[in-house]
Amino acid sequence: METVSEVKSHGGVQGVYRHASAETGTDMVFSVFVPAHAPGAKLPVLWYLSGLTCTHANVTEKGEFRAACAEAGIILVAPDTSPRGEGVPDDSEGAWDFGLGAGFYVDATTTPWSANYRMWSYVTAELPALVADQFPVDMDRQGITGHSMGGHGALTVALRHPGRFRSTSAFAPIVAPSQVPWGDKALSNYLGADRSAWRAHDSVALIEDGARLPELLVDIGDADPFFERELKPELLEQACADAGIPLTLRRQAGYDHSYYFISSFMADHVRWHAERLNR
Amino acid sequence: METVSEVKSHGGVQGVYRHASAETGTDMVFSVFVPAHAPGAKLPVLWYLSGLTCTHANVTEKGEFRAACAEAGIILVAPDTSPRGEGVPDDSEGAWDFGLGAGFYVDATTTPWSANYRMWSYVTAELPALVADQFPVDMDRQGITGHSMGGHGALTVALRHPGRFRSTSAFAPIVAPSQVPWGDKALSNYLGADRSAWRAHDSVALIEDGARLPELLVDIGDADPFFERELKPELLEQACADAGIPLTLRRQAGYDHSYYFISSFMADHVRWHAERLNR
Repeated sequence: METVSEVKSHGGVQGVYRHASAETGTDMVFSVFVPAHAPGAKLPVLWYLSGLTCTHANVTEKGEFRAACAEAGIILVAPDTSPRGEGVPDDSEGAWDFGLGAGFYVDATTTPWSANYRMWSYVTAELPALVADQFPVDMDRQGITGHSMGGHGALTVALRHPGRFRSTSAFAPIVAPSQVPWGDKALSNYLGADRSAWRAHDSVALIEDGARLPELLVDIGDADPFFERELKPELLEQACADAGIPLTLRRQAGYDHSYYFISSFMADHVRWHAERLNR
Repeated sequence: METVSEVKSHGGVQGVYRHASAETGTDMVFSVFVPAHAPGAKLPVLWYLSGLTCTHANVTEKGEFRAACAEAGIILVAPDTSPRGEGVPDDSEGAWDFGLGAGFYVDATTTPWSANYRMWSYVTAELPALVADQFPVDMDRQGITGHSMGGHGALTVALRHPGRFRSTSAFAPIVAPSQVPWGDKALSNYLGADRSAWRAHDSVALIEDGARLPELLVDIGDADPFFERELKPELLEQACADAGIPLTLRRQAGYDHSYYFISSFMADHVRWHAERLNR
């Protein structure tokens, strides 16, 4: 692991790191904020999975999480959203909703995507092992959150790893990719035409199939331009109601899909996770 | 005035606006955050002047001021740092410390700069008049701050407008441009070789020449790479001591010159201004 940069911020250290990923076959860059802490202390860790087009940098620069993480003593890790590099295949028309910047947190099973697009294994296994080895994290106190495609990632990762995360939340998540255009394009390309394979990467389907979370916090702006077509929070609401999962779904009046929305509620989410991670 | 964008954030509206500036002879872009407020209310306004290379966007995206401004009910205005456009002359070698992005908050008196580089009149007269006309600001309750070159701007503007600002602070300001390379390059080009003309744009010289502020808050990182060569806070410390200006100068251990530093202390500054603006 190579240190790209480390800068003091809010009493802690905001770092950016690069490593050669065995899963993606590429170099991967991620950011970690480590608050000030007592020597030898292990801190809870909050995973933040980013949305379409983003790298680690968007939330690192615009997420406004450091003040709250510093106060709560929580490490925040932000991975990239796809493999990158000259040899990595991309959408044939360079679209922003598939390929580079749009890994959708799956292990692709189709050609040519399967060689590099292994973001599921990357964020659930390879990167956590690296982070556990290199940073003062208490891996028994993990939370996960994310935005849009990364909200989809956070929910599916948490649903399929019962007990790993003490807390799960999301900002404007894609909750049912099988039922919306973004997900249809991504999953059909990465996983093939057999839609039964998609259910393992669809939060609503996972809940229908029996996956459970102890509770869930979701914020979404009611002025989000993707609300009706891509996000469909009512599908998550129905699935959670049917499954008895306590969901706090907040429709935030007037907010859109941007980091101006995310940053408005980031401190809220960090504190909500902190209550559960610092118990 | 044209609205470039308006986005809800932290309960208020983060806007970006464009207007044709009579002073610079160009279109100018600036950002304004207006917190939620009662209909008809007039809010205090905090001016934030940015540093070398910046536009309004740097602090707007990375400054982390909105939570604190929303809590205190303070409007924040962030102008650009120079005129821009195809007809605007730039540094002959495209250097980042002069010309575009580096107006130094002076009215240039030399050719070819004097036609467009009128940032002093822009930030002290033209833009305040526009803001007073277009936004719910209480112009009797103004504060000013800035970073680096913008810290220089904030200090010189406040020193030369006694009574206009109830509160003045700065992040890592250039306090004595006449005595450092950045300032020497900028002032000799914009104002000419006669150094006596520079004193009106040099905070330490202005204080030596009798300008006063009721008090002053300055933060600077002790790991700032420009600390010794360009910033020289000890010169401000000495001038304030000699003049009896109460200066709170905080050397922040381990911090650099970036927005990771600024954002760490932004809420502190906003609250400090709020105490004085909301009295």
